[in-house]
Amino acid sequence: MTLFCNTARAIPTMLYELYYWPDIQGRGEFVRLALEYADAKYVDVALVPEKKGGGVPALEKFLEGENVERPPFAPPFLKAGHQLIGQTANILFFLGGRLELAPRDAASKLWTHQLQLTIADFVVEIHDTHHPISNALYYEDQKPAAKRRAKDFVANRLPKFLGYFERVLERNRAGGPGMVGPRLTYADLSMAQVIAGLRYAFPSASREALRTRPRLRALDEHVFSEPKIKRYVASKRRLAFSNEDIFRRYRELDD
Amino acid sequence: MTLFCNTARAIPTMLYELYYWPDIQGRGEFVRLALEYADAKYVDVALVPEKKGGGVPALEKFLEGENVERPPFAPPFLKAGHQLIGQTANILFFLGGRLELAPRDAASKLWTHQLQLTIADFVVEIHDTHHPISNALYYEDQKPAAKRRAKDFVANRLPKFLGYFERVLERNRAGGPGMVGPRLTYADLSMAQVIAGLRYAFPSASREALRTRPRLRALDEHVFSEPKIKRYVASKRRLAFSNEDIFRRYRELDD
Repeated sequence: MTLFCNTARAIPTMLYELYYWPDIQGRGEFVRLALEYADAKYVDVALVPEKKGGGVPALEKFLEGENVERPPFAPPFLKAGHQLIGQTANILFFLGGRLELAPRDAASKLWTHQLQLTIADFVVEIHDTHHPISNALYYEDQKPAAKRRAKDFVANRLPKFLGYFERVLERNRAGGPGMVGPRLTYADLSMAQVIAGLRYAFPSASREALRTRPRLRALDEHVFSEPKIKRYVASKRRLAFSNEDIFRRYRELDD
Repeated sequence: MTLFCNTARAIPTMLYELYYWPDIQGRGEFVRLALEYADAKYVDVALVPEKKGGGVPALEKFLEGENVERPPFAPPFLKAGHQLIGQTANILFFLGGRLELAPRDAASKLWTHQLQLTIADFVVEIHDTHHPISNALYYEDQKPAAKRRAKDFVANRLPKFLGYFERVLERNRAGGPGMVGPRLTYADLSMAQVIAGLRYAFPSASREALRTRPRLRALDEHVFSEPKIKRYVASKRRLAFSNEDIFRRYRELDD
């Protein structure tokens, strides 16, 4: 019966196509980490030359094409055979089942997804510290608002989110290393990426906030010690954090 | 085989417990609309007297209790038997299968969820027009930033989101009335709620933005003409929109 409910497992060698902007990690990175950790075959389409059907025009074809029946709102999106899937957490929910990056039982699957959605909320708030007014404006054009928003983030939201995820790790009856059951899930990979991003963007505030969260520090270390993740991070496929991205280091915001 | 994959259908008379703050619609309203439309049996726990185990303390027990194995980050959350489910879109994904508020095929289920996640992103941006700096501050303490953020929202984000959902409606090959297949889904109920909220919060800007989006106007009208939804809206269970909520009417933001 499992076979019928999870027919996807019958196609382990599927070639996934990831569509995301080139030059930044962005939200695409949460999907990349899952694909890399599971050793899945995938193409990062924006990195394929335009004359071979890749590049940004390949993304735009799906975002703006008039014949796309179920268009994504924004990258990242994933093509798996004929299926086109958008929204980072939705992509990971889909991949979780196929790549064994989440437990199989329905309740734990939903719980893993719930954690991913809470990570997604956290990521929006991290991003908005440097862009509280508009993405259409430069950081420099919204600095006073950014400073106020970042101050609230560091004082209230950062400890609230990290405290929550630390509790989740503590209460995982299987004892970890991740948040759900005895094995790492895609939500753990995303959580480690967020911690790495916070360390880049808010070196001082995140050091302070992580001081009292040993389980999150251990999770971060565990994920980035996994051979497949180490291989990926050492490769050219892993881009560096940068101030064109979600996590940005502005000293004046890290108080 | 369907029976095995959807064992939930075997318990149609389950009593759901919805946990959400009293006195506001908030994100709980997206869940309420789904439960009401499907005529599900549910208890809005915060409205039950405290001495009968309800009220805000009942919510806090799950948010702050030290024995909750899989604690939600924030309301709304739903209790279905022993299962505790948080994150609005996750709750709706779960209910979609049980209450037949989403198609049964896996690809359409994910697509419906993808739309819900995009609606959730939209709702964050709507909320942040009046709270761009911090939820811990009053609107009055972040007015200049709110004015700038709302201006960008009305000029750029509102038409982008509404344009997207109008296209989705247009491309539904089943011809509607909703965004997926021939029947209304939970995502359609949420979309109609967002349109109602926008009409409350931004009467001028939303009138202008909806002028060229006849399919969204028709969806809104369709949803609020459904007998179960009419019954709900006419009941005391439906709270009014208010300026303590996600959608707020501040004349100075509606330019």
